[in-house]
Amino acid sequence: MSNSNSHIPAWRAPFAEFLGTAALLCAVIGSGIMADRLSAGNAGVALLANTFATVFALYVLIEVLGPVSGAHFNPVVTLTLWSKSHLTQEGRAQTAMFFIASQLLGAVAGAWLAHAMFDLNLLQVSSKLRDGAGQWLAEGVATAGLILVVLRSPPGKASALVACYIGAAYWFTASTSFANPAAVLGRMLSDSFAGIAPSSAPGFVLAQVAGATLGVVLDRCLGKDKNPA
Amino acid sequence: MSNSNSHIPAWRAPFAEFLGTAALLCAVIGSGIMADRLSAGNAGVALLANTFATVFALYVLIEVLGPVSGAHFNPVVTLTLWSKSHLTQEGRAQTAMFFIASQLLGAVAGAWLAHAMFDLNLLQVSSKLRDGAGQWLAEGVATAGLILVVLRSPPGKASALVACYIGAAYWFTASTSFANPAAVLGRMLSDSFAGIAPSSAPGFVLAQVAGATLGVVLDRCLGKDKNPA
Amino acid sequence: MSNSNSHIPAWRAPFAEFLGTAALLCAVIGSGIMADRLSAGNAGVALLANTFATVFALYVLIEVLGPVSGAHFNPVVTLTLWSKSHLTQEGRAQTAMFFIASQLLGAVAGAWLAHAMFDLNLLQVSSKLRDGAGQWLAEGVATAGLILVVLRSPPGKASALVACYIGAAYWFTASTSFANPAAVLGRMLSDSFAGIAPSSAPGFVLAQVAGATLGVVLDRCLGKDKNPA
Amino acid sequence: MSNSNSHIPAWRAPFAEFLGTAALLCAVIGSGIMADRLSAGNAGVALLANTFATVFALYVLIEVLGPVSGAHFNPVVTLTLWSKSHLTQEGRAQTAMFFIASQLLGAVAGAWLAHAMFDLNLLQVSSKLRDGAGQWLAEGVATAGLILVVLRSPPGKASALVACYIGAAYWFTASTSFANPAAVLGRMLSDSFAGIAPSSAPGFVLAQVAGATLGVVLDRCLGKDKNPA
Repeated sequence: MSNSNSHIPAWRAPFAEFLGTAALLCAVIGSGIMADRLSAGNAGVALLANTFATVFALYVLIEVLGPVSGAHFNPVVTLTLWSKSHLTQEGRAQTAMFFIASQLLGAVAGAWLAHAMFDLNLLQVSSKLRDGAGQWLAEGVATAGLILVVLRSPPGKASALVACYIGAAYWFTASTSFANPAAVLGRMLSDSFAGIAPSSAPGFVLAQVAGATLGVVLDRCLGKDKNPA
Repeated sequence: MSNSNSHIPAWRAPFAEFLGTAALLCAVIGSGIMADRLSAGNAGVALLANTFATVFALYVLIEVLGPVSGAHFNPVVTLTLWSKSHLTQEGRAQTAMFFIASQLLGAVAGAWLAHAMFDLNLLQVSSKLRDGAGQWLAEGVATAGLILVVLRSPPGKASALVACYIGAAYWFTASTSFANPAAVLGRMLSDSFAGIAPSSAPGFVLAQVAGATLGVVLDRCLGKDKNPA
Repeated sequence: MSNSNSHIPAWRAPFAEFLGTAALLCAVIGSGIMADRLSAGNAGVALLANTFATVFALYVLIEVLGPVSGAHFNPVVTLTLWSKSHLTQEGRAQTAMFFIASQLLGAVAGAWLAHAMFDLNLLQVSSKLRDGAGQWLAEGVATAGLILVVLRSPPGKASALVACYIGAAYWFTASTSFANPAAVLGRMLSDSFAGIAPSSAPGFVLAQVAGATLGVVLDRCLGKDKNPA
Repeated sequence: MSNSNSHIPAWRAPFAEFLGTAALLCAVIGSGIMADRLSAGNAGVALLANTFATVFALYVLIEVLGPVSGAHFNPVVTLTLWSKSHLTQEGRAQTAMFFIASQLLGAVAGAWLAHAMFDLNLLQVSSKLRDGAGQWLAEGVATAGLILVVLRSPPGKASALVACYIGAAYWFTASTSFANPAAVLGRMLSDSFAGIAPSSAPGFVLAQVAGATLGVVLDRCLGKDKNPA
């Protein structure tokens, strides 16, 4: 999905990944802070608001930046598409590396931007533990589903389907569905509603990688005839 | 809607029904557990969250798995389409049987997956009674409407229409609209927000079958010219 | 929009209007009852649930029944389209009369169906006063906007636009936007969240007729070139 | 996007801008008043309702009035499109001036209409201070994002994307994302949930202009190939 036409600067797609991941994390963390402040202790109301802000933001970001970079905003999505040769031929491994670096930098920038808007210290570390078998299973399930949706969306529908999928998974997984190592990094640096303690991060990332692998296997089981007329 | 091309393995469509029904029940039950935990005793907030998780999940599942199996995820939908010869000719009765078995197994698996993610005992039985004329009427109405929507959706819109229909019916029916015998089975095995006591299950399933019959009759009354240009 | 081809029974379109208006009122009143019961005294949560149930139901009903009758479900919509010759030539006045009768009967049936599902007395009369200049202005504004949306929706988008318009107007008008004399009749017969006292009904209907007239005038001001390429 | 065909009256597009901006501000302020009254002190519930009313209204207004005027409803959008020569050639500067004057008048009319519906004094001045670096940064971010979405929406999707963007930005920016000098004017004249004190207005407008400039720069960085096939 990366665009390697000779007349397009090579930094453009990674820049879109940086910008999109920053905006996504800013939306996730910023709306979490706002929702937490306003919802008078009702965490259900707060997560509803956090959900809709994330769904709306994802839909818009994939539509607007998809034509530039494919709108991955997520290292496991980039790695999955790379492994399945969905990235263009020349310099694929290099493209994947630049994408992932841009996503990780974007996630950090997005967290800091949210903190700046809400007059909080830029540099924070989350103290919110998210551990245990249930949480890890949840991240595996969440990521397997995300990869299935990414690989099997009918043409032109990935933006709505990925956004709606995450909106559902915020509620039906016990982990509120990070499903994204860049999101883990950004949220690790925010001691707020959406945060995750650094000690819980490795478990989440491992579960996400395992889930992505399961997603690829399930996609293969379901076959190639994705849209019989 | 089942796909019987010779080069496609016969297990693929039933597997999609298993996977989709498992995901649907996991979404319904998992989001019910999450919503119940977070909503500080406000059942309205909990049902709102449960509604959106279900609407988002249904839309995504029908879009992603529809091309493989038709995305029934519901024995009365399968039986209705079978009775109206919407399933392919060869082996129709057999297809319907495999679909229904897959849906029932999927519903159980989905309930257990939700329990596993939320660190609950896998094996549960609901104690939530849902009985009485109002509840049965509600399931009849809910299922009649669902069948009408399934039979009369304009091409390409079934995913959005079925999802939105269920989203409305969660609120306007007194039963929160199960409208699906596989959902009854899965929810029976979960002593949580979305559960139903086994003693209440037969009434729900009978009402659903009666409702589906009414839906078929109403569809016939409304005629064949579904999309005059 | 009524379909008068000789081979289609004349009762079919009015039947669709009856069925659709019944379903709409059942959705509005039923979800109001459910929302009121569950929302623990937070009327904001209740109206949010009532809003989404109505938006989802309207979208589905217009998509599913639109091809049969045009999906008016509303006497002022029928009268407006009749006055602008949008109904087919032969028997237009008669068609409009049958439509309006079907809508009024449907509204009553829908209210009673909601009561039956929620184990309430079928026959009720609302005691909820909705009077005063602000309420009447609100109904005028709500109906003017609805008529503008009906007359100016791009092809194929009326279902989503009417549903979203009503979703917004539930909140930005002081009357929660009935904008429909059939809705006034149905809600008059329900002593619940969505009800309106009979003594308040004439003011609402008069304001709706005035609002519809304003909507027609505004549509004319905005001109015929609705979709310049 | 303004339509200057000789047979279309010159006042038509500015009138659509007046009408659309009035409806938008009426929706924002009216739903804020309603939400504040109903939500029992839970500002999270109130902002959720305010968000959905705004998202639904924006989507409908852009679809319905877009063909007449381009549906800017926002001076910085008009100025940006003017500066990028997206307005038609003859009389562009004049068109932009008439549009902006219509938007400002519309914003005032919309605030007053909301007050009239809710039986409040028409003439009000907000006392809600919205100051400080975080608020200004938030308005800059909100407006930069809005301009990016306006300039890069795929054909036919601007209505959904702008509406969803604002829905997300209500929550992820610390200022609830006015992103519109006409909205600042209208909200300044309403001492309600959505208001802003006059002393805070200049900071918001300056931040919006700076944000729009950033949006134009980011759009240029992302290149012209917006929709590679």
